[in-house]
Amino acid sequence: MKVRSRTARFGVSLEERLLKRFDGVIARKGYANRSEAIRDLIRDSLVNEEWEDDARETVATLTLVYDHGTHELTEKLTDLQHSFHEHVISAVHVHLDAHNCLEVLILRGRSGEIRRHAELLASVKGVKHGKLTMTSTGKQI
Amino acid sequence: MKVRSRTARFGVSLEERLLKRFDGVIARKGYANRSEAIRDLIRDSLVNEEWEDDARETVATLTLVYDHGTHELTEKLTDLQHSFHEHVISAVHVHLDAHNCLEVLILRGRSGEIRRHAELLASVKGVKHGKLTMTSTGKQI
Amino acid sequence: MKVRSRTARFGVSLEERLLKRFDGVIARKGYANRSEAIRDLIRDSLVNEEWEDDARETVATLTLVYDHGTHELTEKLTDLQHSFHEHVISAVHVHLDAHNCLEVLILRGRSGEIRRHAELLASVKGVKHGKLTMTSTGKQI
Amino acid sequence: MKVRSRTARFGVSLEERLLKRFDGVIARKGYANRSEAIRDLIRDSLVNEEWEDDARETVATLTLVYDHGTHELTEKLTDLQHSFHEHVISAVHVHLDAHNCLEVLILRGRSGEIRRHAELLASVKGVKHGKLTMTSTGKQI
Repeated sequence: MKVRSRTARFGVSLEERLLKRFDGVIARKGYANRSEAIRDLIRDSLVNEEWEDDARETVATLTLVYDHGTHELTEKLTDLQHSFHEHVISAVHVHLDAHNCLEVLILRGRSGEIRRHAELLASVKGVKHGKLTMTSTGKQI
Repeated sequence: MKVRSRTARFGVSLEERLLKRFDGVIARKGYANRSEAIRDLIRDSLVNEEWEDDARETVATLTLVYDHGTHELTEKLTDLQHSFHEHVISAVHVHLDAHNCLEVLILRGRSGEIRRHAELLASVKGVKHGKLTMTSTGKQI
Repeated sequence: MKVRSRTARFGVSLEERLLKRFDGVIARKGYANRSEAIRDLIRDSLVNEEWEDDARETVATLTLVYDHGTHELTEKLTDLQHSFHEHVISAVHVHLDAHNCLEVLILRGRSGEIRRHAELLASVKGVKHGKLTMTSTGKQI
Repeated sequence: MKVRSRTARFGVSLEERLLKRFDGVIARKGYANRSEAIRDLIRDSLVNEEWEDDARETVATLTLVYDHGTHELTEKLTDLQHSFHEHVISAVHVHLDAHNCLEVLILRGRSGEIRRHAELLASVKGVKHGKLTMTSTGKQI
């Protein structure tokens, strides 16, 4: 059974002119209503806050583009992932073309350790591009 | 006499748990109330939107750190600023130490042209660090 | 058979003091040598450049955290993905806890269309956090 | 008399195809040569590194857009700046129109304290937009 937190409601006042512009932007982005758009702004500010604390348990994705033909690349990436195996929840791999691979790792752990892990993977020779995307366990947002 | 746009008011609903966390974050940041914090999130999203349109008139600051001893640096920066003089509203200069200067230019114009101008200034030899900060004329937010 | 582009070599001069600091940073990040660290800085600047052109074919990941219990959420996400099916190469799903899911979509297409697609998915009610990560097909870097 | 650190020189190898693209990008941005463009990439990575350490002495600019007609705004901004007077090196003010002002503060101090100071100023009622730009004392880059 799912237990949800109760819903609160509060009022926001702002200039009509500003509200009109905001309504235009959120309609273009596909939001069904203002409340949902405001909630997304609030949640995004809370996720940014979470990542300022190195010890906070959090979730991230690491996007890597690499040339699988690089000598010993696959071995190094595999070794590094195993040395941090408790962080790697899952990984998905796409063959972009004959040479280029995209791999996305889904990581969970303390934000400081995840950042460190991501730097070590992105710096392996043959990894052309690495980007860490910070999100959340969802529990606190 | 100042004519302000009328004020609108709307309701936002979200989980109590989330609202409590948000209240904690905004109190720490110094916000007097939720409405003001929400307005800032809305305005920031509108400023981001403004900068997606290259032709929009907007305002920015360009922060440069440079070594004033670099050969011909001052001449080049001055020449470039003059060639874009219609963009530069004002400039402030700080002597950080015997060698290093910080200069902040306040720029106004179409966002695409401001970006281009900023790249040309930041790439001058002797400029150690250049960063463009995108803000707004204030009219639309 | 793999055909690689020929390798070029060029020299970079900078102050010893600066080089020493850079060597410290890249060792901490795990780089085997300076050339690899510089190549990564160059590639990252090229990826940023690619994303400035809306019509360029590129690759991205979209990270979504959502509450799967939200009414009609799954249907809406599935419908949206199908309406842009030509963009979605692959998707991976993780059950973060009883309520929260993480889904990572791997997207390929023109950068402008991918941005638009990502906004529509992130704005669906029940999606708590959505972040688009811009990377590359790997061909041009 | 100016004492400069000695200059070091090192080689970078990368694929010709990639170098050609990089040369195109840096020419468009106005760089005189590759060495200068690479130095800027290195310096930018060092500035990012500096800001990860809360206790490091550093330099920033804070860009504020506000409506000077807001009740007690000027007093609050002035009070806050005085309570952190040791951080504020200089401030420049521009009248954007009859209502909107832009103010740029140049700040120096520990990065953690500067971030905190900037949050308190940006959250004052009437400040429509506030953005902190992190740069450097120039000494270490």
